[in-house]
Amino acid sequence: MNLNRVLIYGMGLMGGSLAISLRTKFPNIVITAVVRSEKSKTTILEKSLANQVFLQKEFLSPDWTNYDLVVFSTPVESILKIIPSLPKSGNTIFMDLGSTKETIITAVESYYGNTTHHYISTHPMCGSEQAGPEAAVVDLYVDKLCILTKPKAASNSSLEWVRLFWESVGSWTMEMDSKSHDETLAYLSHLPHVISTLLVNVAGENSATMKEVLGIQKPITGGGFRDMSRIAGSNSDMWISIFKENQVFLRKSIDDFIEQLTAFRDLFGSGLPVDEDKIRKIWELALETKEQIRKTK
Amino acid sequence: MNLNRVLIYGMGLMGGSLAISLRTKFPNIVITAVVRSEKSKTTILEKSLANQVFLQKEFLSPDWTNYDLVVFSTPVESILKIIPSLPKSGNTIFMDLGSTKETIITAVESYYGNTTHHYISTHPMCGSEQAGPEAAVVDLYVDKLCILTKPKAASNSSLEWVRLFWESVGSWTMEMDSKSHDETLAYLSHLPHVISTLLVNVAGENSATMKEVLGIQKPITGGGFRDMSRIAGSNSDMWISIFKENQVFLRKSIDDFIEQLTAFRDLFGSGLPVDEDKIRKIWELALETKEQIRKTK
Repeated sequence: MNLNRVLIYGMGLMGGSLAISLRTKFPNIVITAVVRSEKSKTTILEKSLANQVFLQKEFLSPDWTNYDLVVFSTPVESILKIIPSLPKSGNTIFMDLGSTKETIITAVESYYGNTTHHYISTHPMCGSEQAGPEAAVVDLYVDKLCILTKPKAASNSSLEWVRLFWESVGSWTMEMDSKSHDETLAYLSHLPHVISTLLVNVAGENSATMKEVLGIQKPITGGGFRDMSRIAGSNSDMWISIFKENQVFLRKSIDDFIEQLTAFRDLFGSGLPVDEDKIRKIWELALETKEQIRKTK
Repeated sequence: MNLNRVLIYGMGLMGGSLAISLRTKFPNIVITAVVRSEKSKTTILEKSLANQVFLQKEFLSPDWTNYDLVVFSTPVESILKIIPSLPKSGNTIFMDLGSTKETIITAVESYYGNTTHHYISTHPMCGSEQAGPEAAVVDLYVDKLCILTKPKAASNSSLEWVRLFWESVGSWTMEMDSKSHDETLAYLSHLPHVISTLLVNVAGENSATMKEVLGIQKPITGGGFRDMSRIAGSNSDMWISIFKENQVFLRKSIDDFIEQLTAFRDLFGSGLPVDEDKIRKIWELALETKEQIRKTK
């Protein structure tokens, strides 16, 4: 695998962790980073995450072909703005780490048309409540899934190169088309983040609960609430970006959730006996589906 | 603390773990267990959790005053049936481990009236996806919260005794009245269990998601979904019992959740620009509230 010159455009937790991992795999690699803030630049240089760091405003008309690999690790919205400026020839592999795929793939396919290119969209699933290059760790990608989405005119060789790349940092990969990716992720990731966040806010608005919570120094919660609230409110910028890119499927998943929750509520407290059989069936279905999704059986 | 003869009525995970813990603290203790199934009886004797075990059907008119302490560790519904058969004199301390308090306290106060008694309702918050005496462990109660609820006519000495009892097995305690308990637990425990269960079922009903999930051997999910689904579908009997006892507050918490989720959904996909400011405020509120509830700051 030929990998000497890498540009990581946007170096937070994910880009920074990728840099650390690449250094251990490719000792002679030269890493260039582009970031928005002076603070990130300082952190990256202090931690030696990159050999050189540019601020975005210093990096306006780059020669992308100077790199073997360019990794976009910024919110999807800003990736969409860069795509129309990429070269249509050369051997540079382009790759993003975007959390949604449909808008990116549409932009890439519309820009390149039938011209063969080397842009592969990827989604390493390794979220964390941490953020920023200061949180970067060497093993962020180890044993994690990286989803690969190939635009129509992308070369097969670039897809295989990108697959090997992710395997080289310890990930396992699967391919998904952009629509399936965004719909699946709405249900398995975006909706859970919304639910976790609102669960905390609903408890926070209940005065009886907050009176008890604030009246004692230790947490009243058991493991259930602790787990259910871990991802609440994390990384608002990233999530706003995801919600913007995946509005249709996110709304669909929320509507489905409201429908099931409303039906569940109506099994209680209407004066009629509680419908134990229906509750038991809902519980049993969840146990079975949980095992299918988490592969825990 | 005088504790020689204990009756644990209902010995699953919680009663069994209590038995193990009591043996290490009080080496001469004699533990009697009452269970429903022959299978539990066999497990309890094999694991030496109790000195003697009765099936419920062999234990119909017990002399409760034979014990220093009687612990009810069955679903609340069956505790409600036993309360009217308890003695109104003697020094036996009665205690339950019920997950809801209002129906128990109402039954106790209605039965004892103004007669001083020694029944204290308790709720050790140490749930687990595991169940049954075979899952019993020595440290289930260590560093866990046990909520104490005192009926009006219960003696202060019994409250203090019960507090010391829970501290002796490693728990920390706080008092809550029955209404505050049931409302707080609706928001911090019962609603999260409903949400977790339905989140799994909503994903399970989405065909795009399940096509991807079933098409690959490893789990597609990241840590978010894994944490959010951990408690889904666990222990249906226990949860049906809790929902039956706490219908009013559970419905209220579900209604609050539907209201917030509906408002959130309307920040998207209506053709208007996404309301980023509102989403950011919701996210920031969750982060702050999460720290208050989990005491993580």
